[in-house]
Amino acid sequence: MEWEDLARELSQQTESKIVLLVMDGVGGLPAEGKSELEAARAPNLDALAKAGVCGVADPVMMGITPGSGPSHLALFGYDPLKYQLGRGILEALGSGVEVGRNDLVARGNFASVKDGLVADRRAGRIPTEENVRICEALNARLPKREGVEIRVFPGKEHRFVARFTAEGLSDALSDADPQKEGRAPLPAEPEKPEAAKAAGIVNSFLDDVAEVLAAEPKANAALLRGFSKFPSIPTMQELFNLRPAAVANYPMYKGLAKLLGMDVLPVGAGTDDLIEALEKSWADHDFFYVHYKKTDSTGEDGDFEAKVAAIEALDPYVPRIMALKPDVFVVTSDHSTPSGLKGHSWHANPFLLVSATAGADDVNAFAERACARGYLGRFRSLSAMPLMLAHALKLKKFGA
Amino acid sequence: MEWEDLARELSQQTESKIVLLVMDGVGGLPAEGKSELEAARAPNLDALAKAGVCGVADPVMMGITPGSGPSHLALFGYDPLKYQLGRGILEALGSGVEVGRNDLVARGNFASVKDGLVADRRAGRIPTEENVRICEALNARLPKREGVEIRVFPGKEHRFVARFTAEGLSDALSDADPQKEGRAPLPAEPEKPEAAKAAGIVNSFLDDVAEVLAAEPKANAALLRGFSKFPSIPTMQELFNLRPAAVANYPMYKGLAKLLGMDVLPVGAGTDDLIEALEKSWADHDFFYVHYKKTDSTGEDGDFEAKVAAIEALDPYVPRIMALKPDVFVVTSDHSTPSGLKGHSWHANPFLLVSATAGADDVNAFAERACARGYLGRFRSLSAMPLMLAHALKLKKFGA
Repeated sequence: MEWEDLARELSQQTESKIVLLVMDGVGGLPAEGKSELEAARAPNLDALAKAGVCGVADPVMMGITPGSGPSHLALFGYDPLKYQLGRGILEALGSGVEVGRNDLVARGNFASVKDGLVADRRAGRIPTEENVRICEALNARLPKREGVEIRVFPGKEHRFVARFTAEGLSDALSDADPQKEGRAPLPAEPEKPEAAKAAGIVNSFLDDVAEVLAAEPKANAALLRGFSKFPSIPTMQELFNLRPAAVANYPMYKGLAKLLGMDVLPVGAGTDDLIEALEKSWADHDFFYVHYKKTDSTGEDGDFEAKVAAIEALDPYVPRIMALKPDVFVVTSDHSTPSGLKGHSWHANPFLLVSATAGADDVNAFAERACARGYLGRFRSLSAMPLMLAHALKLKKFGA
Repeated sequence: MEWEDLARELSQQTESKIVLLVMDGVGGLPAEGKSELEAARAPNLDALAKAGVCGVADPVMMGITPGSGPSHLALFGYDPLKYQLGRGILEALGSGVEVGRNDLVARGNFASVKDGLVADRRAGRIPTEENVRICEALNARLPKREGVEIRVFPGKEHRFVARFTAEGLSDALSDADPQKEGRAPLPAEPEKPEAAKAAGIVNSFLDDVAEVLAAEPKANAALLRGFSKFPSIPTMQELFNLRPAAVANYPMYKGLAKLLGMDVLPVGAGTDDLIEALEKSWADHDFFYVHYKKTDSTGEDGDFEAKVAAIEALDPYVPRIMALKPDVFVVTSDHSTPSGLKGHSWHANPFLLVSATAGADDVNAFAERACARGYLGRFRSLSAMPLMLAHALKLKKFGA
């Protein structure tokens, strides 16, 4: 019997409410003796650490640096080694592209090809309006083929999503992207025999695009990567009996949330908007995933001070979340993004849990080494969901 | 997807170098309030603990006392519950005996049998030269049997390795060793039906040995134990993309290292020799397993003071290792050998990791209870390899 079986058997709907605040990439490493969290003045987060219990959570397993997909899946109670999501599917769902069982999606770039070589992988970052115009042209003028439907959806600047609909498509395809400029465009290669049909459709599409866009000054070709199909994954309703909602600014996280059955709430671009959306929909859901991006993007930029500032900028919102009186409030990150490493890392996430049943420890700061001394100890992020459900009294007893 | 799949997919070769210093059996228990590590003056190890992060590692799982095989396998990133190695195979490889796919090997003792009973299990610890002479006699005079090849290889004093080569041998055999003196010699019994052929060959061999050695004053019989075949196990090159080397004084550890694909460096008998071999081969490898035996043997002897002295004897070498500037330096034990227990135990190993990306905790001594308060928390030794590879930046990101 595994966690998922337990979850299906034991989870029950109750009135209690859970807030999971993901400060993306907030875990870091010391520079001059203090990590970003240790350097930040975040009295409200520290007060939460003092009020609740703390620990550190490994996203996948010790030593493994996860992408955003696996690290979030784990926090939501899904084993990231069991469910693997292509980047294309996340991008598509996040952009509001509907994806069904017969659909194969990929992330696309419009690119500039000159003399048979990719001269600019981003077509000079064409304006988004031009992208919209080009996608409309393609959707209108791409030749129709029997049993196949293809649509492209514009994203920002040169980015788009391609969706191929047909029976029996496999996503075992290599990227149709040479990755570097000065090389010839690449066709998608089938990585398994059953992907031959998909490769044929994708490569005809690439040829068709080049023909339709031949006269474009910049965006005259398409590169595709991250081919993926809709994964077979149970929803949070099915597994956990939750009525979950996602409060996020960015497509990737909205897409992931939608995939798991969460209601993706309409949210503006700011942090204020996140908290407002949470307040407004408080009555309608019992699980709220709140995603804060800036701690990750500043870490990716390698900007220690900006990451400290991003932590300090979120801190004043904590009392507004607490004012809603969640029964369980967890603050953690999906993965660490130490500014010293300028990217995701394998370091365990600081984790705090506040609830009437939390118990107590002596931690009074929300930071890596403080949390490592907490009552919750070291655990895998996959345990976050059972912990949250338990403290919300949403899990029945196992066995007699 | 499991750790091994992740390792194959994510590991990459880089210039960074890892040193894993195994202080065999170093973990212990307090006598008069202090464990061996706590009683030892080891300023260099303590400085490492202060510079890096610490934790405690369970070799197999909590409560399980491992042999040297499983405890080392775990440290090297191999699940000890998946790969099980017979002691015979380790002994054979460590003695430089080549072992192929059709070979069955066992550890042997020459013994003295009198009036049908084992009078001395070690034949009075005959000199090694006598052992060499006896093995030569056996290899020359043992009767040949169709489809079977048998060779014996002398070890130290009364010890030898027997190698049986034939099609379809199974190693599911009980030891042909009564374990105590004053008992009759035992034949090997098949533990599974498919081991009947092997049992027949082994027991004929035992009879033949007694006949050939009938006139010997002391060594007139053979006892065999730890029957094992060459296991099917991937190398560290295959799994982790490493160029690994082993620096060890003793056959068992060399044998294990060779089995996993490590280059076993020529090393003299002293601790000085270990460090010299490490220094000399520094340029040629990116992973160095350094094995220090005395902390285990003194623990096995139940000699608390001698174990303290063994720790203090190694400590001065730590700066020489650090002078090589390893990117990752881990010090731990394979298993604990508390002198109070005079043997291996299940207690978690103190573990310290030094690296630029280690992060920080407040531990400033390398000892059991100090490490248990460290940032790394409590984990299974199987996580040591992912941690070392991660901190050496040898693992790519998992998922998008």
